[in-house]
Formats: sequence, C-alpha cells, structure tokens
Amino acid sequence: MRILVIHGPNLQLLGKREPGVYGKKTLKQIDDEIRKHAKSLGVTVTTFQSNHEGDIVDKIGSSMGEFDAIIINPGAYTHTSVAIRDAISGAGLPAVEVHLSNVHAREEFRRHSYVAPVCKGSICGFGSMSYVLAIDALVGRA
Amino acid sequence: MRILVIHGPNLQLLGKREPGVYGKKTLKQIDDEIRKHAKSLGVTVTTFQSNHEGDIVDKIGSSMGEFDAIIINPGAYTHTSVAIRDAISGAGLPAVEVHLSNVHAREEFRRHSYVAPVCKGSICGFGSMSYVLAIDALVGRA
Amino acid sequence: MRILVIHGPNLQLLGKREPGVYGKKTLKQIDDEIRKHAKSLGVTVTTFQSNHEGDIVDKIGSSMGEFDAIIINPGAYTHTSVAIRDAISGAGLPAVEVHLSNVHAREEFRRHSYVAPVCKGSICGFGSMSYVLAIDALVGRA
Amino acid sequence: MRILVIHGPNLQLLGKREPGVYGKKTLKQIDDEIRKHAKSLGVTVTTFQSNHEGDIVDKIGSSMGEFDAIIINPGAYTHTSVAIRDAISGAGLPAVEVHLSNVHAREEFRRHSYVAPVCKGSICGFGSMSYVLAIDALVGRA
Amino acid sequence: MRILVIHGPNLQLLGKREPGVYGKKTLKQIDDEIRKHAKSLGVTVTTFQSNHEGDIVDKIGSSMGEFDAIIINPGAYTHTSVAIRDAISGAGLPAVEVHLSNVHAREEFRRHSYVAPVCKGSICGFGSMSYVLAIDALVGRA
Amino acid sequence: MRILVIHGPNLQLLGKREPGVYGKKTLKQIDDEIRKHAKSLGVTVTTFQSNHEGDIVDKIGSSMGEFDAIIINPGAYTHTSVAIRDAISGAGLPAVEVHLSNVHAREEFRRHSYVAPVCKGSICGFGSMSYVLAIDALVGRA
Amino acid sequence: MRILVIHGPNLQLLGKREPGVYGKKTLKQIDDEIRKHAKSLGVTVTTFQSNHEGDIVDKIGSSMGEFDAIIINPGAYTHTSVAIRDAISGAGLPAVEVHLSNVHAREEFRRHSYVAPVCKGSICGFGSMSYVLAIDALVGRA
Amino acid sequence: MRILVIHGPNLQLLGKREPGVYGKKTLKQIDDEIRKHAKSLGVTVTTFQSNHEGDIVDKIGSSMGEFDAIIINPGAYTHTSVAIRDAISGAGLPAVEVHLSNVHAREEFRRHSYVAPVCKGSICGFGSMSYVLAIDALVGRA
Amino acid sequence: MRILVIHGPNLQLLGKREPGVYGKKTLKQIDDEIRKHAKSLGVTVTTFQSNHEGDIVDKIGSSMGEFDAIIINPGAYTHTSVAIRDAISGAGLPAVEVHLSNVHAREEFRRHSYVAPVCKGSICGFGSMSYVLAIDALVGRA
Amino acid sequence: MRILVIHGPNLQLLGKREPGVYGKKTLKQIDDEIRKHAKSLGVTVTTFQSNHEGDIVDKIGSSMGEFDAIIINPGAYTHTSVAIRDAISGAGLPAVEVHLSNVHAREEFRRHSYVAPVCKGSICGFGSMSYVLAIDALVGRA
Amino acid sequence: MRILVIHGPNLQLLGKREPGVYGKKTLKQIDDEIRKHAKSLGVTVTTFQSNHEGDIVDKIGSSMGEFDAIIINPGAYTHTSVAIRDAISGAGLPAVEVHLSNVHAREEFRRHSYVAPVCKGSICGFGSMSYVLAIDALVGRA
Amino acid sequence: MRILVIHGPNLQLLGKREPGVYGKKTLKQIDDEIRKHAKSLGVTVTTFQSNHEGDIVDKIGSSMGEFDAIIINPGAYTHTSVAIRDAISGAGLPAVEVHLSNVHAREEFRRHSYVAPVCKGSICGFGSMSYVLAIDALVGRA
Repeated sequence: MRILVIHGPNLQLLGKREPGVYGKKTLKQIDDEIRKHAKSLGVTVTTFQSNHEGDIVDKIGSSMGEFDAIIINPGAYTHTSVAIRDAISGAGLPAVEVHLSNVHAREEFRRHSYVAPVCKGSICGFGSMSYVLAIDALVGRA
Repeated sequence: MRILVIHGPNLQLLGKREPGVYGKKTLKQIDDEIRKHAKSLGVTVTTFQSNHEGDIVDKIGSSMGEFDAIIINPGAYTHTSVAIRDAISGAGLPAVEVHLSNVHAREEFRRHSYVAPVCKGSICGFGSMSYVLAIDALVGRA
Repeated sequence: MRILVIHGPNLQLLGKREPGVYGKKTLKQIDDEIRKHAKSLGVTVTTFQSNHEGDIVDKIGSSMGEFDAIIINPGAYTHTSVAIRDAISGAGLPAVEVHLSNVHAREEFRRHSYVAPVCKGSICGFGSMSYVLAIDALVGRA
Repeated sequence: MRILVIHGPNLQLLGKREPGVYGKKTLKQIDDEIRKHAKSLGVTVTTFQSNHEGDIVDKIGSSMGEFDAIIINPGAYTHTSVAIRDAISGAGLPAVEVHLSNVHAREEFRRHSYVAPVCKGSICGFGSMSYVLAIDALVGRA
Repeated sequence: MRILVIHGPNLQLLGKREPGVYGKKTLKQIDDEIRKHAKSLGVTVTTFQSNHEGDIVDKIGSSMGEFDAIIINPGAYTHTSVAIRDAISGAGLPAVEVHLSNVHAREEFRRHSYVAPVCKGSICGFGSMSYVLAIDALVGRA
Repeated sequence: MRILVIHGPNLQLLGKREPGVYGKKTLKQIDDEIRKHAKSLGVTVTTFQSNHEGDIVDKIGSSMGEFDAIIINPGAYTHTSVAIRDAISGAGLPAVEVHLSNVHAREEFRRHSYVAPVCKGSICGFGSMSYVLAIDALVGRA
Repeated sequence: MRILVIHGPNLQLLGKREPGVYGKKTLKQIDDEIRKHAKSLGVTVTTFQSNHEGDIVDKIGSSMGEFDAIIINPGAYTHTSVAIRDAISGAGLPAVEVHLSNVHAREEFRRHSYVAPVCKGSICGFGSMSYVLAIDALVGRA
Repeated sequence: MRILVIHGPNLQLLGKREPGVYGKKTLKQIDDEIRKHAKSLGVTVTTFQSNHEGDIVDKIGSSMGEFDAIIINPGAYTHTSVAIRDAISGAGLPAVEVHLSNVHAREEFRRHSYVAPVCKGSICGFGSMSYVLAIDALVGRA
Repeated sequence: MRILVIHGPNLQLLGKREPGVYGKKTLKQIDDEIRKHAKSLGVTVTTFQSNHEGDIVDKIGSSMGEFDAIIINPGAYTHTSVAIRDAISGAGLPAVEVHLSNVHAREEFRRHSYVAPVCKGSICGFGSMSYVLAIDALVGRA
Repeated sequence: MRILVIHGPNLQLLGKREPGVYGKKTLKQIDDEIRKHAKSLGVTVTTFQSNHEGDIVDKIGSSMGEFDAIIINPGAYTHTSVAIRDAISGAGLPAVEVHLSNVHAREEFRRHSYVAPVCKGSICGFGSMSYVLAIDALVGRA
Repeated sequence: MRILVIHGPNLQLLGKREPGVYGKKTLKQIDDEIRKHAKSLGVTVTTFQSNHEGDIVDKIGSSMGEFDAIIINPGAYTHTSVAIRDAISGAGLPAVEVHLSNVHAREEFRRHSYVAPVCKGSICGFGSMSYVLAIDALVGRA
Repeated sequence: MRILVIHGPNLQLLGKREPGVYGKKTLKQIDDEIRKHAKSLGVTVTTFQSNHEGDIVDKIGSSMGEFDAIIINPGAYTHTSVAIRDAISGAGLPAVEVHLSNVHAREEFRRHSYVAPVCKGSICGFGSMSYVLAIDALVGRA
C-alpha cells in the first residue's frame, strides 16, 4: 500500500510556534514518525506539505495510479476549500482527514469541514498520533 | 489503564439492521474485538450499552476513580445531549468520541456534536476499527 | 397484523389535564378505543406508554419479529429525539406518526419532527381518532 | 355532510407520471374511490382540481353554505400560498390537509406548510388512502 | 386623475367573514365609499378584485395609458408575489400599497412585503379608510 | 380631539440636508402644515421633536389624560427602540406610525419596526403628507 | 424536435418598459427571432406567454407527447413557484431555464430558483439571445 | 405549602467536580440548606435528583395533588427537553426555574430555555441560594 | 452594604397601566417595599428611575465608591443596550438583573438580554418580589 | 475578437474521473471543440487551466489589452473566491460564467456564485456545449 | 480645519476601569494628546463626551458650519444606534470611526457597526493612537 | 524596526482599473510613498504583492526573525482566508490590517474579516494613507 500524506497550510511551522495548540514536534519529526510507523507495517508513505490550495489540488489530481490512499490534514483549507473536496472526490482513492488539535473545541468556523464528507473517515485531536492512527485505519491493523 | 467504553442508543442492533450504514458485525463481536485489542496492550476495558441518556449520564458520573479514560460512541445523543456533554466535562477524564460511520457524510444535523468539544479527540468512519484506534490514541501506542 | 402502539411523554396524563389542548379522554379510554377498532379489523394491538426516550428506543429496538407495524405518538420527543428516529429507521417496520393536536397550529418548534421523515406517513389533529385512522392506514381499510 | 375535495396543482397528472413518488392511480380513479367511500358513509362529495391558486381561492371562498367541510391537497401551493391559507381561514369550515406522499421525507422546503395551521388536522403519506382517512376523520367514523 | 384600485385575494369576502380582523363592510360598500370620495375630488376610480395573481398582473400590465396611478391591496400576495412587484415596477405608475388591518401586528410572515419597495408609499391599519387616504395621498389633498 | 405629534431623531434637520431622501420642507413648515390641517378639522395638535429616546419615552409616558391620540415618526428609533414600543403600548392611546420616506425601499434594516405592531396603523412614503393623512385617519375624515 | 417556449409573467411588456433592464425588443420580435432560428435548424417552436402560474402549469402538464423539450423563462415565478417546478419535473421532458437579464446581479431574492434544479441547465444574461442559445443547447448544435 | 424540588442531570456530582463553575457544596448540603430554610417558613420540601429526563417527567406528572409548587433546576435538560416543559405545563402547578450558575454568561446554547416560558419565574447565578430564593418567591416571604 | 436600585424605561408608569402584565403596585410602593426590606437587613438602598439609556449609563458610571452592589431592571433596554452592559461591566460591582414579568413567556425578542451576561445572576417573574429577592441574593440572607 | 477561456480547479481531470457528473470528454477534447467552433466564427481563443486561484487571478489581471472577453468555468472557486470575482470586475472585460454540470441540482453550497454577479451572464448544465454557447453569446451569433 | 471629536458611552471611565481592555490613560489625558497633536498640525479640535445617544445626535446635528470633519468613537452605540448613523449621514461632513480596542477580537456582536458604512474610514485597536491617526487621515499628513 | 508590507490579490492593478473604488495611484507609487514615509521614521520596509493565498502564507510563515511587524492588505482574501489568519496568528508578530476602500460601505460579504481578529488593529478607507497610518501605528509616532 502506497499512502500519500498531505500537510496543509502553516504546518511547516509545527514545533516552532503555538506549541500550546499544535504540540512541540516539528513537521520533520512527525514525518519521520509517520514513515517509521508505515515502514513497520510494510506501507510506503510519501509526505507533502504546501501552503498553496492549488498545489494540494494538483497533488491529489495526480495521485491516481501512484497512490492507493490519501491522508490529509487540510489545516485552514478544511473550512474554505471546495477545490480540495472536489479533488479528493475526483481522485477516487480512500482518504482520511486528520487534525492535530481537536477542531471541535476551537472557533465555531473550525467545526465545519468541506473535506470530511468525501473522506472515508476523520481523526482529530491526537497530535502526530492522528496521522499514525490514520495509517492503521487505512491498513486495517488492529 | 482502565477504559470505559460506552455505546449509545440503537447500537444493540448492530449487525442485525442497516448493515449498509453500520456494518455487519454485532455489538458482541465489536466488544470482543475491543477487549482482545485492549488485552494485547495490557489495558482493561469495560463496555456498556444503553439506549437511555440518563443511564449514560449515570455511568459517566460514577466513572471517576473507577476508570482512567472514556471512549464513547454517543450515537444519536451526539447531536441532542447537553447532559452527556456536561457529564464528560464533569468527570474530568480524557474521553474520545467515536462513530462507526462517517457522520459528516450523512444528514446535515449529524454534523453537529455537543460531545466533541469536551473530548480529547474524535474518530469516525472506520466501523469497529474506530474503537480500536481510540484505545491506541489513549494508550499512545504507535 | 400485529401493531405496536407507542404513546410518548406526558400522555399518561391525558384526560386529566389541559383538556382544551389534548381532549377529555384518558389514555385508558383511548387504548380501549384503539383495541376495539383493531379487533374489528382482525388486528392485534399492543399499547405502550413511557416518558423515557430510552424506553421507547428499547421497545422499538425489540419490535422486529414481534410486530408488523408501529404507530407512534412521540409527543415532545417528536421535536428532540434523533434516537427514536434512528430506532424506527433501524427497525425496518412501516411506522405512522400520530398526534392528538394539530402540531402545526402551536409553537414554532413543534412544527419540526425528527421522526416523520422515517415514517410511512403522519396524521395529526384528530384526537384519539388519529390512532384509529393510523390503523386503517396500515391495514389499508377503506 | 357535504364535503368539498380540492386537488391542487399537477394532480391532474396522477398515474401518468412519476408513479414512484405519487402512485399509479389516476386522479379519476382516486375520485371514484373517494366518492364510493363517501357514499358508503352517507356523505356527499364534490371534487375539484385546479392548477390555479386563484381558482382554488375562488372555490374555497364560495364554499360557505354549500359545503360542511373541506379536504384539500394543496400540492405545491402548500409551501407557497398564503392566499389559500387565508381562504380556508375565512371560510370558517373544518378543513383537513392531505398529501399523497410523505412530504417530510422529501426536499427541506416541502416540510413547511402555510395551510396546515388553519386546518383541523393533516394526513400525509398514504396515497389515495389519505383522502379516505380524511373523510373518516371529518365524519368521526371509527 | 384616473386611479386603478386593485383588491387582492379573499377580499370579495369582506364583511361576510372574520369581521373581527377585517371589519364589517362589504367590498361593495368599500368600493362605493372609494368612488364617492374620489368623485368629490374630481378623480375617476376603477375598482378591480381578483383572487388570481395572474389577473392582477394582467391588469397592472395593461394599466399604462389608461390610468395615472394605482392603489393596491395585494392581500396574501403581498408576501409571496414577485410577479405583482415586477408588474408595478414595469408599469411605471405611482402606486400605493394599502391594507385594511395592521399587518405588522399579525403573523411574522405578514411583515414582509414584496410589493412595498416598488410603491411610492404604503398605508395600513385603517380599514376602508386606508383606500381613502391613499387617494388623498395620490391627489395631494390636505 | 387632542393629538400629540412626535418627531424622532434627526428630524430637526429636515429641509437642510439630504432633501433627495427627506424632501425640502423644514420641520417648522411641516409643523405649520400639520397644525393648519388639524385646525381645519377642529383638532388640537401639539408637536414635539427630540433626538433622545428617553425624552420620547417620557413624553409618551405623560401623554395619558393630556392627549387622545399619538402620531409618531420614530425615525431611526423605529428599528432599535423597544422602549418607545413599550411606552406606546403602556399609554393605551391610539397611535399612528408615520415616515416621510418609503422605508421599505431603503436599507434592509429599515424594514423592521418595533413600533408598528403596537400602533393602530402606519403610513409611509408621502413626505409631510404622511402626517396629514395620519390626522385624517385618527379623525376618521373622508 | 418540437420545442415549447414559455414566457412567464410581465414578459408581454417587453420592449415597452424598463428597457434598461430587459432590453428594447418586444416579445413579438423575440418570438420571431426564436422561430427564425429554430426553423434554420429544422426545429418546430411553439411560444406561449402567460402571467398566470396556473396557465403555465397547465401548459407544461399537457406538453407530454406534443413536445420534445421545454424552454422556460419563468420570470418572477422562478423564485416563488414550486408548482412550476413540479410541473416540469412531472413532464419528464428536458427543460432549459432562461433569463433575459443576469439574475445574479440583481436583488438577493432573485438568486434563488425553484425551477433550475429540475432543468437540464440554465442560461441567463444575454437578452433574447438566451432563448436562441437554449435552442442550440437542446439541439446540440455547435 | 408542599414544594417539590427537582435537581436535573449531573447535579449528583455537585461539590465533587468543577467547583469553579458550580460551587463547593455537595447536593446533600444544598438539600439540607433548602430543607432547613423551608422548615423555618413552615413549608414542606421533597427533593429529587435524576439524570433521566423520563424520571423527571414521571415525577412532575405525578406531582398534582401531592405538591403545591415545583422548584426545578433542569440542568442540561433546560436547553433540550420539550418533555419537561410539557410536564410542567401539564401539571398546572406554579414552578420556578433555578440555576446555580449564571447560564447567560456561558456557552451560547445555554441561553435558551424550553422550561422558562412555562414557569412563573426564574432565578439563576446564586449557587444554592437560587433554591432558597425560589422558596421565598413561592411563599411570598419578604 | 449600599445598594443602587435602577428602574429602566416606562417603569414610572407601574400600577397605572397594563396591570395585567406588570402588576398593580406603583413604583413608589415598590420602592417603599424595597427600602423597608433593605432596612430590616441593615442595607442602604438608593432607587433611581429613568427612561434615558444615557442617564442609566451615567448613574452606573458614577456608582463606584458610592455603592457596593447594583440591582437593575433594565426594562426595554435589556434587549437593546450594549451601553448599559458596558457600564455594568466597567463599574466592577456585583449586579443582579431583575424583571417584574417572566420575560421568557413574552415576545421572542424579550428572551435575549445584553445585560445578563455581565451580572452575577438574574431573577424574573415575581413582580416587586424580584427586587426583594435580589437584595437577599446580594446580602446572602437565607 | 480574442477570447480567454479559463478552466478552474480539477478540470484537468475531465474525462478521466466521475464521468457520470462531468461527462466523458477530456479537457483537451473540449479545448479542441472550443477552438474549432471559435475558428469557424473567426474568433481567436486561448485556453488556460489551473488549480491555483492565484494563477487564475494573475491571468485575468493581465488579460486587459490582450483579450476582448473572458469565458470562465471557475469550478470549485465559483463558491469560495472573492479574489476571482474582483479580478473579473477589475479587468473590465465582458465575462461569461460556464459550468459543465447543472450546479443548481447538486449540493446546496454549489448554488451560490461569487463570480456570476460580475459577469454578463452564465450558462450551466450542457457539458462542453456550455463553452460553445458562451462563445456564441459573446459573438452575438444566432 | 476644525475637527469635532466625539467620545461615546462609558468613555468617561477610561483609565479608571478595565485597563486591560481599554488602556491606562484617562479621557482627559487622551484629549490632551489629541489636542496637542492637532495643534502641531494647525488643526482645531473640540472634544465631546456623552453617554447619551441623543446628545451625540444633537451634537452631530449642529456640527455643520461649525466643523469640517468628525472623529467619532461611538463605543457601545456603534452596534445599536441607527440614529447616530443617520446623524452623520445627514451632517454631510467627512467622518472617521475610531475604537481604542480591536473590536473584531471581542464578542461577535461587536463586529457589526451601524456607523462605519457612513464614514470615510475606520481605525481600531491602537488605544488613544487611534484618534491621532484619524486626525492625520483627515488632514492627509504623511 | 523592520516591517513587512503585504499587498493581497488584484492590488497589482491599482491605478489602472476602477479608480473610482481604489484610487488613481499605482502600486508602485504607493510602495514609494510607504518606503519614503518609513525611511523618514527610520523604519525598514519590505513590500510584497501576490495574488496567491499560498504565497502570502509562505511569506508570513518565513517572516519571524526577519521582520518585527506586518502590515497586510489581504484584499479579497480578507473574507475567505483562514490560512492567512492562521499564518499571522502563528507568526506571533504584531500585525495591522489595512484596506484602501471603506469595506463597510460595500457588499455585505466584505464586512466580515477572518484576518482582523488576529491583528493588533485595522485601518480602512484612506487609500494609500491607510498604509502610512499603519506604519505610524506600529511605530507609535504621534
């Protein structure tokens, strides 16, 4: 199984700022954690971060044939991007929405996701563990 | 770690009805799966199902001292119960909200949760695997 | 045909209070009326009243195999219970929503029903006659 | 008892189109059914169909003295006609709103009725049987 | 000055029903009153009543050249007819909206008028006097 | 008949500013017009202008016994003052709401009036003529 | 191919009034233009104008068998008529909604269409050309 | 005077959890305080706590004849229970809604009460003193 | 303890008008009652009534150092005054909102209070007793 | 005439995915179709596809002087991009909004367009034909 | 240039209360700062503070001819006063809305301003500096 | 002090189009003006324009350590970009939101800003002067 992991806007700053909200790990540390976990399950993982809605749409658009599943933390685009929703819907791959923080416990506008309805499921609130659980969910590992 | 797993209303019917929406496993099979997984991690699990909002509030209210964490699938009460929200908030234990189906892909009213904001995180859309992942999330197992 | 007739919250008070709104008959008189009418059509009727949302969900949940149809006056739970909606939806039996009073002529919040969309049809405004008509509707008697 | 039965817009097409939603009977067959049932109860029935909101308002406006009760399936005008509401309210006759389909299980906008609050009660979801039940409701036949 | 006075739906029933809301005068008496008042001011008045939105749109559409101003009591169409609004707007004649009752003191939905924004002004709450005042307003008589 | 005429906020500026919206007459000219018209009908008129919500409430509160009716142009307070509404309601005198401009043809927020529901009727859009018509309405002059 | 072209309320006034909004052509000129264009494509066109919602519903209701497609400019009824929506839906013919003006650039309430969801597509903003394009769209001419 | 005091969901936890929000007294201490105060006024008090909406409805439903007034802290059910509202309305006894905390200073959804409109009055924000004041209010003691 | 009691708009009319809604006591009688009760508790009370939002803001603004607590019946300003809210919030004194009538049982707009969230608590529905209870609440007398 | 044709996000996937919603043609085939049609009318067409809101804004921003008109299928950005709206508005060129599918028959959020109000008109529901019709509309070809 | 600076309700308390929100300077200190800055630019400044909406309306109403521009901190009236909006609009002088705090970072209701749309611009969040910047903005000093 | 000045989408067009709304100066002229003003205050300014939300997020994300403050005119992204909001919030630098035009006097959707709540303050309506004032605000120059 080949999984594409997408990190949305501002996630390049992880570990550097607002650790109270997003945790202390850097994106690199999270990527290493993800890769290590995937490897232990015999899963290939490609990680990708962009602050550009268009880049994310491009990436998802070209994922068919190259990947078997998508894990996406759409960050702020969760709440505003119909384009990413349509990209996932068009890609036809099983996708899991993840969030580091519990989006339901923050501002009201963060409770609505354009992306979630076209995913298989969603996981939020567990820091980098959210990604790890998403891999398990896709692999079906108990 | 002692985890209380709460199944909300209508979940006693699992496997018997609407398998298209909720899957083919019975609640007993899911409970066995949960228990087996927990055991492999050295975690004690107590499962509890009720169709009564009040029973669930009672159970959560008496969980302090007896349990270290709560996994709750509030079912229909997700969208209507402030009482369960307050019970969790009052219990002061880390809680994870789980759903078998992807609630974001169903009726609009299922997208609002009174419970999620007082939980540590939430997981939905992976059938019985949602519970298993919640245990991993609480235990911090990668 | 075996029909389960469910009376929701506060209907045990019928005939005793607010006769201007709900009529002068007691619940027992209504149950007798229902049973007599059913008998004349060769239909078996079991009546059940509860003020507990959970009891009603329990009852509907165990109706499969025991009953062929459900008549439900969800009372106040009409407007607040997703759990009863899901129970009816899960039971897979034809159901009819009934109300003694014309709910559309009362407070605005009484105009929304969580239950009606999962029923075959609904009848309101005819006092105890609403139940009688629901039996006819289910039996298909003209 | 003389009852005026009003069929609203597009009901002239019954049986010809969208039988999945509205059933297979033609309006004529339904009218025959209604008349036959009424006759068996000693009730006189006059049926009237129009696609014109104004015609329906005219008819209701001239019903006083000629009829003792009204059964109305306002069709699409249920959701948009204050004029029909006012006509019924002005006529001062007991009225019953009926629908062939369960309007609560369709588009959101079909869940609001301008007409229901000025009627004695409403019946929906039972095909032509909805009219038959309405006659029974008005006659008080059990 | 030639004034077209339009009475909307259900106004043919004036004086016969719901005198508590609409007063005891018949439409004929009101028309006489209007005509008498107009005559005293040297104004020609043509009155027109219809329950048909389309008839009212037809009438307004053909008013140009035949009339110098319009007084309209749109009745229930006040709240639902964009067509009448567009007709008045298209006719290019000064129009006054009138109501017998104080629409602001009734149901919430009666407080919104599609017609008022395209009129010169509006007068409500004075029974048949509302029409008389509208004539004075158009004539500019003090 | 003794009528209290109240002019709300900013009406002291009439004739000086925004004549395109409010007309060219000064408040004094309008008051003279009102008084002259009233005199011709044998009616006593007292006019009062204030930019202070509290002054208007005071004035209305002390009107009982001194006046038989109230004509009020609440200006901007139309849309924001529950206090003036309650004052009129408490005064128990017949009141008429007037506006110089057609409030329905302006900003959306000007379409809602807290004052109108507690008045006998309302007149808007006819400049100073709105006041004159209100006197006629109260006097019942045709 | 036989196409029914329906012009909704107030369109009989085209060219006579508000040319700034709706253009200078009369309805007759537009009908000629439509017919000429249709003829060049070997398509038969029947045009129909009415200010009556009911007439339009009647016409659509009797279109089956006589026409192969419908082009409708519902005018003001676009925003208020569920009856026309249901008629089109019931007729089962491909339909195209057209508007002379760009309805999205006008009042907020003109942005909602009851009719569009049951049509094949919609075209607005091109004056009489909107009809011509609709014919091309139905015929599939490039 | 016999007063029934009802404590809603989660109030059994008082004093044990979230003292910052709900104060440090246990429910037993509050009940003692209530009883002592009632006794000093010659009033009999029966206290009742339940996390079950149905139990509370049952209790209120059987209060007629046994009690002269009700004091209810509906807790979370304040915002979600139409059933409790209807029970109070049906019981026909004077009722006072109380809250320990100031519900208006918390989450938005806590500002709406289904219960308050059917009570005589409401008191919130004074901790256990809210109950004591409610007794005084019912007894009319100054 | 020195308490400032503020009576908002229209309360000077108490006892004179609408006794059905606000009771038969005059404001003077209520003030005497308040003072007498306060005296019995060794509390000094200063009462103040104004129909002017600005006067009330002035009064609260100058209360610091002169008073230890505020009891305010903001009347109509409850629903419209952010200025009074800010004044109370700025004054930093414990405040209690009171109402004579049960505001939750009246018009929908009376259910929202700008003032309540910045008060310690609120009491409504008990006539002049609401003030007396507020004193007890502030003094902590049982 | 030189026309800039802009294809928004995910349109590069046309023909490859979800043909049930968007048709079977690839974007290249559609571009060829557009160019061929344009050529036959003597019109120059430049096509441009991007998943990047910013790229589309850039392109429109630099269109002045290079193009005489714009045809834009904003895809998902239709519903979320004020930036594209402002770009079109700033470019000052006549623009036509097109959609392959009938956006009015899909999710509710797809019924709102930020772009339509600043265009000359819009065409949706005709697959690639929507673009062809837009060219005809701009050229004025009948 | 003569500038009228208006301070709205509760601003007389500046520096005395809630310095965390509004800063530590007193209104007098701010006025001195404003005057000093104005003087350095050759601008005359008159400052005015009132808690009375009516006083502010009076002041603005009499500003024409006496002042060339207005700087207004409407405080709480920002969100509730149509009267001040109309006064500014009527005065015809360039006006700047200022706030000490960043109103967008506070309660939701503080994000709406009735006043801003009739001003030239607005400045918020810079404490007393907001006034100083407003003077520069009016004078056009860089 | 080093300030990063960000110009959002379509601002590259300044001076070329819609001068009625945005003024006649080109972006280059504005940048020169900003730089000149900054220089006179001993402040370093770096200006940056992009039509790409992602570029702006990138830029803000890399601003920490390189800049001491941010001035941002988010243009259309003001109303739609949570990503820019999060970037500013994450950067931890004081930021000022500026707009050339008075956004409160334009379309309703322009009145909501996702960016303003995470800024120190905002300035709008003064053309290029808005930027100049923002520098003064950050520097604290009077």
